[in-house]
Amino acid sequence: MMIYIDKNKLTVGDKLPNETELSKTLNVGRSTLREAVKILSFSNVLDVRHGSGTYIKNTTASTFSNTQLLDAREMLEVKAVDLIIKNGYQTEDMLQLKEILYERNTLLADGKFSAYVTADLQFHYKMIEMSHNPFLIRWYQEIQTDLSAYLSTQILHLESYSDNTLIHNELYHALLNLDRSTAIKNIKLNNINDLAVDA
Amino acid sequence: MMIYIDKNKLTVGDKLPNETELSKTLNVGRSTLREAVKILSFSNVLDVRHGSGTYIKNTTASTFSNTQLLDAREMLEVKAVDLIIKNGYQTEDMLQLKEILYERNTLLADGKFSAYVTADLQFHYKMIEMSHNPFLIRWYQEIQTDLSAYLSTQILHLESYSDNTLIHNELYHALLNLDRSTAIKNIKLNNINDLAVDA
Repeated sequence: MMIYIDKNKLTVGDKLPNETELSKTLNVGRSTLREAVKILSFSNVLDVRHGSGTYIKNTTASTFSNTQLLDAREMLEVKAVDLIIKNGYQTEDMLQLKEILYERNTLLADGKFSAYVTADLQFHYKMIEMSHNPFLIRWYQEIQTDLSAYLSTQILHLESYSDNTLIHNELYHALLNLDRSTAIKNIKLNNINDLAVDA
Repeated sequence: MMIYIDKNKLTVGDKLPNETELSKTLNVGRSTLREAVKILSFSNVLDVRHGSGTYIKNTTASTFSNTQLLDAREMLEVKAVDLIIKNGYQTEDMLQLKEILYERNTLLADGKFSAYVTADLQFHYKMIEMSHNPFLIRWYQEIQTDLSAYLSTQILHLESYSDNTLIHNELYHALLNLDRSTAIKNIKLNNINDLAVDA
């Protein structure tokens, strides 16, 4: 249903087709459709006006603060660490993570800040991928452009990135050794570090 | 960019317009656009073929297991609890949560299983809303239809739901008292409970 709304470029205020039509288009039964409409109306996505029809009330998150963005990132990363520790990892994946880490640290040391931001995001994304959870992967993809914009701004204000590199090295070693508490500690440190510049 | 892909109904294999055109459509500078393309190509969303153009490689998560769905749910709920405990809550919100809980428990006790699933989802969604984080709210909306389908199937196999009601009552009281560890404990118990039926 959410995908239908997106695909059909429906925005706030638009009216949904009637039940018969929608059930045909989405290829689902009427009871399933009614259930979905009920849920989305509770979630403030749809507005069911009796005798008039069903309208779009809200679509996606439009505005957010940096704290909310970093909270969402931290949530995805902590869960990814949990899943990696729980399910283990492939040597090939860990090798790639190490390569990206090396590139990230080198770019930073060389003052190639723009390429560094991309490599830094790659490192975090590789970690999310290693969770093998499609929801985490998709949601991290969704915020990557916003994270990139945020991190780029942060660099302008920072004097030294040595703490940052240390945090990433420790995070890598904690994952390698399946050491959950050290991994989580460094993810939280990284978050605090990124937010600190904001204050 | 992800929204552009969705809105324009682009699917796997489709070619993106060239840089000039895309930069005009999205109303962003070329360097921002290049950065976004780079990131999305690392994330396996886009495939940049030199001399040919940029193509869509992957869009959204298509298949997932029940464990992956419940892992994603647990992640969102744990973070919501963290944020509620950290930022506090409005009395009005907690009052609504209590009303929904009462309705949920009554429907279950009365054997109105279909309406119960909706009320149960409402309870969890209300908790997510109380986090006031737009990412958590949007992502929970995205999985609600799948969760509803999953929970409906689970009911068919369950004999007694008393543990389940107890878990939800305890979760409510823990939120009311800003008791993080009890709240998290009950969220995890609920997850285990919902998955157990699967085995």
